[in-house]
Amino acid sequence: MTKQVQIGITTRKEDDMPEWYSQVILKSELADYAPVKGCMVIRPYGYSVWQKVVNYLDANINRLGVKNAYFPMFIPESFFQKEAEHAQGFKAEVAWVATKDDNGERLALRPTSETIIYDSYSRWIRSWRDLPLKINQWCNIVRWEVKDVKMFLRSREFLWQEGHCVYETQEECTKETLQYLEEYRKVVEDLLAIPVIKGQKTEKEKFAGAIRTYTIEGFMPDGKALQLGTSHELSQGFGKSFGITFLGRDEKPHIPWQNSWGLSTRVIGGMVLTHSDNKGLVLPPRVAPIKAVIVPIPIGDTSQRVLALCCEIKEMLKVECHLDDREGYTPGWKFNDWELKGVPIRLEVGPRDVENRQAVLVIRDTGEKRAVPVNRLADEVSQELERMHVRLLSNAKTRVEDSKVNVSNWTEFVKAASERKLAYAMFCGEIACEEEIKEETGGMTSRCIPFGHPKPGGKCVHCGKEARYYAYFAKTY
Amino acid sequence: MTKQVQIGITTRKEDDMPEWYSQVILKSELADYAPVKGCMVIRPYGYSVWQKVVNYLDANINRLGVKNAYFPMFIPESFFQKEAEHAQGFKAEVAWVATKDDNGERLALRPTSETIIYDSYSRWIRSWRDLPLKINQWCNIVRWEVKDVKMFLRSREFLWQEGHCVYETQEECTKETLQYLEEYRKVVEDLLAIPVIKGQKTEKEKFAGAIRTYTIEGFMPDGKALQLGTSHELSQGFGKSFGITFLGRDEKPHIPWQNSWGLSTRVIGGMVLTHSDNKGLVLPPRVAPIKAVIVPIPIGDTSQRVLALCCEIKEMLKVECHLDDREGYTPGWKFNDWELKGVPIRLEVGPRDVENRQAVLVIRDTGEKRAVPVNRLADEVSQELERMHVRLLSNAKTRVEDSKVNVSNWTEFVKAASERKLAYAMFCGEIACEEEIKEETGGMTSRCIPFGHPKPGGKCVHCGKEARYYAYFAKTY
Repeated sequence: MTKQVQIGITTRKEDDMPEWYSQVILKSELADYAPVKGCMVIRPYGYSVWQKVVNYLDANINRLGVKNAYFPMFIPESFFQKEAEHAQGFKAEVAWVATKDDNGERLALRPTSETIIYDSYSRWIRSWRDLPLKINQWCNIVRWEVKDVKMFLRSREFLWQEGHCVYETQEECTKETLQYLEEYRKVVEDLLAIPVIKGQKTEKEKFAGAIRTYTIEGFMPDGKALQLGTSHELSQGFGKSFGITFLGRDEKPHIPWQNSWGLSTRVIGGMVLTHSDNKGLVLPPRVAPIKAVIVPIPIGDTSQRVLALCCEIKEMLKVECHLDDREGYTPGWKFNDWELKGVPIRLEVGPRDVENRQAVLVIRDTGEKRAVPVNRLADEVSQELERMHVRLLSNAKTRVEDSKVNVSNWTEFVKAASERKLAYAMFCGEIACEEEIKEETGGMTSRCIPFGHPKPGGKCVHCGKEARYYAYFAKTY
Repeated sequence: MTKQVQIGITTRKEDDMPEWYSQVILKSELADYAPVKGCMVIRPYGYSVWQKVVNYLDANINRLGVKNAYFPMFIPESFFQKEAEHAQGFKAEVAWVATKDDNGERLALRPTSETIIYDSYSRWIRSWRDLPLKINQWCNIVRWEVKDVKMFLRSREFLWQEGHCVYETQEECTKETLQYLEEYRKVVEDLLAIPVIKGQKTEKEKFAGAIRTYTIEGFMPDGKALQLGTSHELSQGFGKSFGITFLGRDEKPHIPWQNSWGLSTRVIGGMVLTHSDNKGLVLPPRVAPIKAVIVPIPIGDTSQRVLALCCEIKEMLKVECHLDDREGYTPGWKFNDWELKGVPIRLEVGPRDVENRQAVLVIRDTGEKRAVPVNRLADEVSQELERMHVRLLSNAKTRVEDSKVNVSNWTEFVKAASERKLAYAMFCGEIACEEEIKEETGGMTSRCIPFGHPKPGGKCVHCGKEARYYAYFAKTY
């Protein structure tokens, strides 16, 4: 019996969430620290979760007519200068290549690819017949923003997709900008079971170069908001800067309308924060690489028959499952190991289960345990997985709803900030006012102007000027 | 009728292959030049071919137990120093990041990831129970080697996969190193219809840090060889340098055995060179994103019925097909356009075809044309696609066989070089001798020591020393 030491999570989520978070990720083997500052390694277990996200989103955007491509990682410095706001917005985070271009120009490692992609678009787009042009790329991104990596949440290199679409009309562009946001909601809620608030970013928080940024915002158990996907209406700004024009149906030249939209490996961080517990990772069933693990409990001379039933069960399940027949580990050790790794369902099979033709089904998030006859097992497992998804999403929704506070004056706002709540308040929308709010509250920023909420008839919670809209405020990652 | 100008390939393959090659790639929209020197843009059409390669290879290596992960693109300079040969081998092509690590160390952009991956392996591997460890990553790679990009064949950034496996025994390691080479042969021959020679690299040509490199070598119509995939036996060298050890079944520490293997977007270049012709791209059917295109030939008042039959055919085909119902383009223009884009099969439907319930099936590579009754169309199309794959591979094989020359002395070798042949000769295997061969022939390098060939009883074709083996020599990309 080697390797029997079980190293579980040694810190509680409610006591020290950052430490708990790192332990869950490291010990479940989702990811590891890299020897390069600010970077991480996505291990096979974590990558397989990302792969589920990729496959789901990729299929959905392909159905909307988006095609994948690949553009260079190197962006000439002059390209950033072309769109002034964009250049300003990314200035602080750009990493440069030491080796210069042969023209002597500095090259950046892409912090986002609008500029290099739109340079190509200016050559590819000639006529309205070339539109809409809908291209996406899955790639690595570099933003030299932090020293200390927060795995999946903030690192100098991460993986994402970025969609870049071009349209004849503003109407079509706006409609689809919102459609891609809805695709993000589906990934995050329907796959990862993280509830989000859909809305629009304020002037201060919008993407550098966009006229409007739409966002899906999650709210984590530590009282911090997490931006999980954004979709930007770029209007005609980049089109003008990069000389993109098309000959319209009226035979005249026009500048097209553009959007861009991105979702990154950060969603995996949101998933861990939202669902995991003090026993370790809890994987939402739809992204779990292993949905059920079968653990034999062989006692004495029954081990052959126990293993035989385990194999039979493995064949019969309709979902991705794994039979843990490792030798040299006790069943108890294996139970802990698979709980740490967040597998949604465990099926225990001992001598008594062989006798009764059953297995003991254990559910990861609730700990619920019950015997199920073998002939009902395949259906029960599939149903439990669906129930678990619904339950995880619903529990998280309840928690977020409980965190929302309607604040009607500055005192209440400050109180909400100190209690790490999600504050809902009337807001003037001014950049300067928002900067003051952030400073005076130690980090409250607007998360979004939620869709479908009424126009306020009242004053800004901070400056007292006429409020333009209701907005959610929270501290953030 | 706008946009009727057909810009086909204006140079013949046999007259100026480099110019022809660029035109085929640009005009078929596989790829485009990038505004950054030495870089390229993979356009959606080209990326969809790459995606077919990725899906096929990824599924096959996953079946062999390989799992995907993602490691940082940044490699600390000190990591390269750890394995002396490796450092020396990649020295000239490494691009560095201007922003230093917070420790003041220079960071390279990965030219290959052995060092950064094996640093993690040294922490992950503890016991024989952790082996074999089989990890792969799909990523971008930077090698600052050229100014002028040869699209897909040589560029400063490209896409690839790199597999990195660790084993308890040398035997298992050698066996699997060859297994991954066989997976590459399958991708290149069975999918892309490019015939290859399997063999081992000479001392001079092997991977920096490997004890043996295995390769699949293609031979292009311009008389140049193209290395299409390599698999390296690393033995224990990196294990020693990076301090990877495991506690064996004998309870003693051991250094494990490793391999690494890579295949890149270069295979798409090989595909273009091998099969395409003076009308444009020819896509091997198994990677063609569109396998059959249906072109209506509407005349007068028949257009409704023509289009109806086209739609019926589209529904009935068992392969990825496209109905080109664009208005404002003549059928003739469309024929040329789809030939340029290399779609394997064209189905023409005119009024007479409606009358006879048939379509005219045109085959891209042979130009063969025949009427097929609608009720036989689905089967005929599928069969023609398979026949086309077999024919493309077989034609290319014949061409390669015809290019092989057995040379028994230096005069014959020089003649083979000047005639751009694939020279098969006895060789001493010495690095110095191979360097002289290259210099004296204007670029002949050993491509591989083919598998399964006899040991020669004779002298090296160049230096006259005892020959160690037969090898193929050719000029190369």
